[in-house]
Amino acid sequence: MSFITFIVKPTFTGCINQLMVNEQLINPASIVIVGGSNDIKKPGGKIVKNCIDGGYQGTLSIVNPKENKVQGIPSYQNIKDIPDTELAILAIPAKYCLSSVQMLLEEKNTKAFIIISAGFSEADEEGAVLEQKISTLIHKHNACLIGPNCIGVSNNHYKGVFTTPIPPFDAGGCDLISSSGATAVFIMEAGIPLGVKFASMYSIGNGAQIGAEEILEYMDMHYVHTVSPPVKLLYLETIKNPGKFLKHASSLINKGAKIAAIKAGSTSEGSRAATSHTGAIASSDMTIRALFKKAGIVYCSSREELISVASIFNYKELKGKNIAIITHAGGSAVMLTDVLSKGGLQIPPITGEEATALQHFLHPGSSVNNPIDFLATGTAEQLGIIIDYCEHKFDHIDAMVVVFGSPGLFDVENVYNVLSVKLDICKKPIFPVLPSIVNAQKEIQTFLAKGNINFPDEVVLGKALAQVYKTPAPTPSEVTLPEIDKETIRHLIDASDDGYLSPERTISLIDATGIPRVPEIIDASKKEFLKKSKEIGFPMVMKVVGPIHKSDHQGVLLNINTATEAETAFDQLMSIKGAIAVMAQPMISGIELFVGVKKETGFTHTILCGLGGIFIEILNDVAAGLSPISKTEASRMIQSLKGYKILQGTRGKKGINETYFIDIIQRISALVSIAPEISEMDINPLIGNSKGITAVDVRIKICKTIDEPSSLIIT
Amino acid sequence: MSFITFIVKPTFTGCINQLMVNEQLINPASIVIVGGSNDIKKPGGKIVKNCIDGGYQGTLSIVNPKENKVQGIPSYQNIKDIPDTELAILAIPAKYCLSSVQMLLEEKNTKAFIIISAGFSEADEEGAVLEQKISTLIHKHNACLIGPNCIGVSNNHYKGVFTTPIPPFDAGGCDLISSSGATAVFIMEAGIPLGVKFASMYSIGNGAQIGAEEILEYMDMHYVHTVSPPVKLLYLETIKNPGKFLKHASSLINKGAKIAAIKAGSTSEGSRAATSHTGAIASSDMTIRALFKKAGIVYCSSREELISVASIFNYKELKGKNIAIITHAGGSAVMLTDVLSKGGLQIPPITGEEATALQHFLHPGSSVNNPIDFLATGTAEQLGIIIDYCEHKFDHIDAMVVVFGSPGLFDVENVYNVLSVKLDICKKPIFPVLPSIVNAQKEIQTFLAKGNINFPDEVVLGKALAQVYKTPAPTPSEVTLPEIDKETIRHLIDASDDGYLSPERTISLIDATGIPRVPEIIDASKKEFLKKSKEIGFPMVMKVVGPIHKSDHQGVLLNINTATEAETAFDQLMSIKGAIAVMAQPMISGIELFVGVKKETGFTHTILCGLGGIFIEILNDVAAGLSPISKTEASRMIQSLKGYKILQGTRGKKGINETYFIDIIQRISALVSIAPEISEMDINPLIGNSKGITAVDVRIKICKTIDEPSSLIIT
Repeated sequence: MSFITFIVKPTFTGCINQLMVNEQLINPASIVIVGGSNDIKKPGGKIVKNCIDGGYQGTLSIVNPKENKVQGIPSYQNIKDIPDTELAILAIPAKYCLSSVQMLLEEKNTKAFIIISAGFSEADEEGAVLEQKISTLIHKHNACLIGPNCIGVSNNHYKGVFTTPIPPFDAGGCDLISSSGATAVFIMEAGIPLGVKFASMYSIGNGAQIGAEEILEYMDMHYVHTVSPPVKLLYLETIKNPGKFLKHASSLINKGAKIAAIKAGSTSEGSRAATSHTGAIASSDMTIRALFKKAGIVYCSSREELISVASIFNYKELKGKNIAIITHAGGSAVMLTDVLSKGGLQIPPITGEEATALQHFLHPGSSVNNPIDFLATGTAEQLGIIIDYCEHKFDHIDAMVVVFGSPGLFDVENVYNVLSVKLDICKKPIFPVLPSIVNAQKEIQTFLAKGNINFPDEVVLGKALAQVYKTPAPTPSEVTLPEIDKETIRHLIDASDDGYLSPERTISLIDATGIPRVPEIIDASKKEFLKKSKEIGFPMVMKVVGPIHKSDHQGVLLNINTATEAETAFDQLMSIKGAIAVMAQPMISGIELFVGVKKETGFTHTILCGLGGIFIEILNDVAAGLSPISKTEASRMIQSLKGYKILQGTRGKKGINETYFIDIIQRISALVSIAPEISEMDINPLIGNSKGITAVDVRIKICKTIDEPSSLIIT
Repeated sequence: MSFITFIVKPTFTGCINQLMVNEQLINPASIVIVGGSNDIKKPGGKIVKNCIDGGYQGTLSIVNPKENKVQGIPSYQNIKDIPDTELAILAIPAKYCLSSVQMLLEEKNTKAFIIISAGFSEADEEGAVLEQKISTLIHKHNACLIGPNCIGVSNNHYKGVFTTPIPPFDAGGCDLISSSGATAVFIMEAGIPLGVKFASMYSIGNGAQIGAEEILEYMDMHYVHTVSPPVKLLYLETIKNPGKFLKHASSLINKGAKIAAIKAGSTSEGSRAATSHTGAIASSDMTIRALFKKAGIVYCSSREELISVASIFNYKELKGKNIAIITHAGGSAVMLTDVLSKGGLQIPPITGEEATALQHFLHPGSSVNNPIDFLATGTAEQLGIIIDYCEHKFDHIDAMVVVFGSPGLFDVENVYNVLSVKLDICKKPIFPVLPSIVNAQKEIQTFLAKGNINFPDEVVLGKALAQVYKTPAPTPSEVTLPEIDKETIRHLIDASDDGYLSPERTISLIDATGIPRVPEIIDASKKEFLKKSKEIGFPMVMKVVGPIHKSDHQGVLLNINTATEAETAFDQLMSIKGAIAVMAQPMISGIELFVGVKKETGFTHTILCGLGGIFIEILNDVAAGLSPISKTEASRMIQSLKGYKILQGTRGKKGINETYFIDIIQRISALVSIAPEISEMDINPLIGNSKGITAVDVRIKICKTIDEPSSLIIT
């Protein structure tokens, strides 16, 4: 078997090699706030205050027809009077925005805009038209636009937002990008009290021009590991350009950054999932999860989870699954053990000479056999020794969780001081769970003031830790796919119309893709059918051709053993409503599998795989990946199936050779790369046994009029 | 079919009709703190301080050989000098406890003890012996004991704990019972900042005499709805007497109380689950979940979840699954919609005339079609109107979640005032999500000061809400079970030894239980076997008798169609290692089911059911209930299976009649009630079709030397 290399290359219509986010947006030499006011209870007033309080170093001016000065800043009655300005923040009614933007672009050399005003595409059709006009105009002038309908931008250079809190800039903190302004505020509010730091906040709003993809692109292009903020947090309600998103998210992670994201709206799509086809099962949430997995993004479902993951990112990297739990409070350790082991992490026993040596440093009754419980009377010194043992002596330990609260008897600052020092110097990550947010409030504040983050609930930490641990590294952008017969495939596709491919062409396509299939005969004439059936041999399976849901109409007949049985069966099948012919195949035995393809708008093809029968129909046991699918991804997909044990062989029944299954998934991935017009495809069943995997029933749907260019092309 | 009524009656050896918890523990007229000191950084000092600060109204005295006064309270050098005292709190080294207890019991008429000292059964064998001696002595004097190794007791009468925080007594708050003192502290610390109120805290410690069961028993006996604290929160590491626990938990809930509990240590047991038998699959966690379900207790896995459920309990009862989400921030509403619908709740559309009428009160661009989004500019007045519409006009709405934060522009106190008023007066529950814990910190504090509780994260609330909603009401204590042949069953059991029941007796037992079974023949002689096989008829299935894991050794042969085939098959099966005979049954077709029985120490029998084959072997798709199992419980067990759709019939295949499955589960429940010596039982498979359900393979294990009396008896 020979291989060729398919190289994934993103292409974006209309903006090749042009970064949308520009320097004027990120670090403007001058800012004008159009609609800036003295009323700090209004967005136009608060945004001025935030810019001033934030210590903006460039030239700040205001446009307000009623004022000469706003909060001490020069105010112009008319835009035409202001000097040239790089960034304009518009806090005026929607209807005045277009003319203002036009004047700024044409006369003031403005290259970046933040429109916080609402009343655009989120409101009505008229607003959508206005938004489109503004966006087009800005684009034409090679300028960039954040918003409209957003809370603004805040970074190390300026605080162009009308909301609080505005956490102080921290180069080691998180960059936050959010589709929802309020949610961005709530995310920061959830993080700040725990010690989470922020570097910037980008509120996308309606995303008329710039979405999360474009901001990630800018961050990717400028990312310098150990200099740039390393953690990116995303709250997304839509991903307009998944290809761009994937490219820059993976690239950032490959450079050393870490990304966690919430994609809200997972169930509204999921509920549309129908029951009968793989296509229907591939809900958008499944595709989003596949995208995140491919990019190496940690999938989150709540603000709390996002903040927990961000907090984990703040500490050293978790490189293995063996956790030592160090505590003076047994209950928390038990609950943490439960949640970590449920999540696939381990709390391995700690025994041997070194464990005995450690025991001597602790009070009688202490336990060193993970969880390490050094009792309510445990001291700061003992904590330090335990951590040193985990760091230096217990080689199989990858990370530590220290749970230490206070019953309120005495100050625990000395304990937290030791912990803080160890957090800095140890190479293994240590995650601090300080649950006594009432009793040790002061000591926790001191601990946070040193730049640490606290996890108040051990189970919340445990779940997030498992989520981080199970997120794979980004898939390399160059994916090697098996060689398939491109010429034949293109010929077949080009010659076909939209809709389901004919049985004959389907067979040719499967053969050109190099997927083994069972021999089959098809005929509408009983006489011809019986003649041909000799090629197949008995026992055989006979199926009606025509109706979609064959098995719902007894359209599949197994174990046809004689010519007489075949004759009766033929009549029976042709009497089914919609029958146009009968097909026959030899009966082969093995495990029922399936592979499917689904195309969602904006995404490359989603490839699905799983076990057939009840696994797909009843249990929705489907794994999904975004094409192109690497060997590692295909293998991971297969191993993630609930029915994976069956594929391995179980209770006297032989399994399949996974290599063949991986190969078929990759061939399908190669097929849709060559034939992106395939909008839907099902191989169901494939019969797998230890010798090989054979396609039995294949359905392919073509759609040449797809509504968008594929964002990933194969060269 | 006739029915008899089995009545569940708890029985407790050694303490019939005697409540362990007594009035002297709950409301002591006098307290002595043995080991009370002036050093408030030590437990013995802090507990004195807490009693004084807590305003204890009775006579407080101290025993401390070195002091005449401790923190202003009279101190005696020797216990023998103190006046008669109802409750003694011991904060002295373990080794001095026994003699102190003895003197207090014999000379001071002390009837209740709290031993906070450690160094007992949790430490070593010597400590365990000492603990047992103390406990026996106390029990002999008809007194009661909390601890040892605990943080104490705090209620409306006294604050006998050495830890903080000690939340002010609130009659509408939570009673907290905890196996772990530190965890009790951390649970309170997690709840207090959110507004959760407490009425009492009982730290069980080693639970030498009094466990959670005994405290629940006392609470049950004294519960008066609308007067007693309504919410019980439990953190448990063990349940020594599940029968007592079940009785009083259910009774409390039936009286109007609500209970949520963490049972830590779910996976250490779960990991022991083996793969091949139902017995192995019935992990302790499964049995605990079955117990909680039967009692109506909400199962929690973390402190956060426990506190979230407690917070939900604080508000009006959720009586349906239709939730209106009211917000000014879209993102939170989307995430909440996701989590609620994943959890089985609904966010039904709100449309029609009244919806249009509501729309007129809101700003343009607002949406009333659930989630109700009244925009960032939404006012307090509008919030009030929306809530009124949900309360009075939208009849299909069962509850509301209001998400309202603050971007930091202006004070939102007026909004929270409206919300607080509505929380009081509306009959439908309203759950407030106030995420702006930074921006609206002051307003949230004002809101909490009115007695409200806040849910800072919408998804955390959503998960807990689903958990509460899916917890069923307690099973009635009187369960009606089908009539079975008690006399024959007792005769068979009495005549059998420990171990697996013989095939003949197994058949008789199944017949006496009224469970349909396939006819079968068994013989070790080929000649006899072939003669008998004519009764069965072809096709038949032949199985080896002897080896446990039949299918692992090709010990089950299907589709035996002729006498010749039967002869060959007989030889083949007898050649398997361990074979003692061959069994034959007619082949019947249908859906493979199973029912199993598992006996865990202290519990009544756990009855398991599910689909056979891969569902049990690969997917662990098992439902469990604690015997006796009501019709409702059996039905709920069946419907909770992942493979339930198969039982209903799917894709052209007929399902089973659930009534028959329910009947068989109940018959097994009746069987183990009559024959509690059954320690393990498997009917696997049962073949079900629309006509009936038939047992094919049955295995029963007897153990007459069970280590404890069954805590539930049948009269």
